[in-house]
Amino acid sequence: MSASTCLFCKIVGRELPATIVHETDQVLAFQDIAPKAPVHLLVIPKAHVDGLQALAPGDASVVSALFACVTRLAAQTGVASSGYRTVINAGPDGGQTVGHLHVHLLGGRPMTWPPG
Amino acid sequence: MSASTCLFCKIVGRELPATIVHETDQVLAFQDIAPKAPVHLLVIPKAHVDGLQALAPGDASVVSALFACVTRLAAQTGVASSGYRTVINAGPDGGQTVGHLHVHLLGGRPMTWPPG
Repeated sequence: MSASTCLFCKIVGRELPATIVHETDQVLAFQDIAPKAPVHLLVIPKAHVDGLQALAPGDASVVSALFACVTRLAAQTGVASSGYRTVINAGPDGGQTVGHLHVHLLGGRPMTWPPG
Repeated sequence: MSASTCLFCKIVGRELPATIVHETDQVLAFQDIAPKAPVHLLVIPKAHVDGLQALAPGDASVVSALFACVTRLAAQTGVASSGYRTVINAGPDGGQTVGHLHVHLLGGRPMTWPPG
């Protein structure tokens, strides 16, 4: 998917609405529109990356920035101590539905096993 | 949990057996003993970290190294194109059962939603 047609790039560019909860130079975090837990946020790189498998070795800082945001948001939403799950879906079997790398942060209820 | 009693530290130190599939200076990858998908691997930092929430800002390279290993293993196990899911459980509600940071890599079947 090209950045020009990507839903999440449109959210970054404020062309589509989203409930944004945090933003830095590198990442944006907003509420999932179909939440599966009391806390269900998505954390994305602002620069378009198709997904986990599209990350080049030089993109290491992207992953670090995403998870730095995740741990910050866990504290901000009050689930850092109670616990939470992070999920990245990569490709068809993973269940990736938007072709822009994103980390799901789910918390506020006990998550079950297996994870889907 | 201290490193001296940690199950995963014992795997790193070869004091406990595991089916190891990849190793670098920073990370170790091995098969989950209770697999929930045809491919179910765990990727851990060799240096003890309690979990995601215990990562300090200076630990950014740890996360990058874990996910560099994940994308490599996805290719190695043949699920890079078919797709896969990565999961990190953090704390009680996340379902974290071993107090040493680990990324689950699951593939080889369609993963369902919600992720637990």
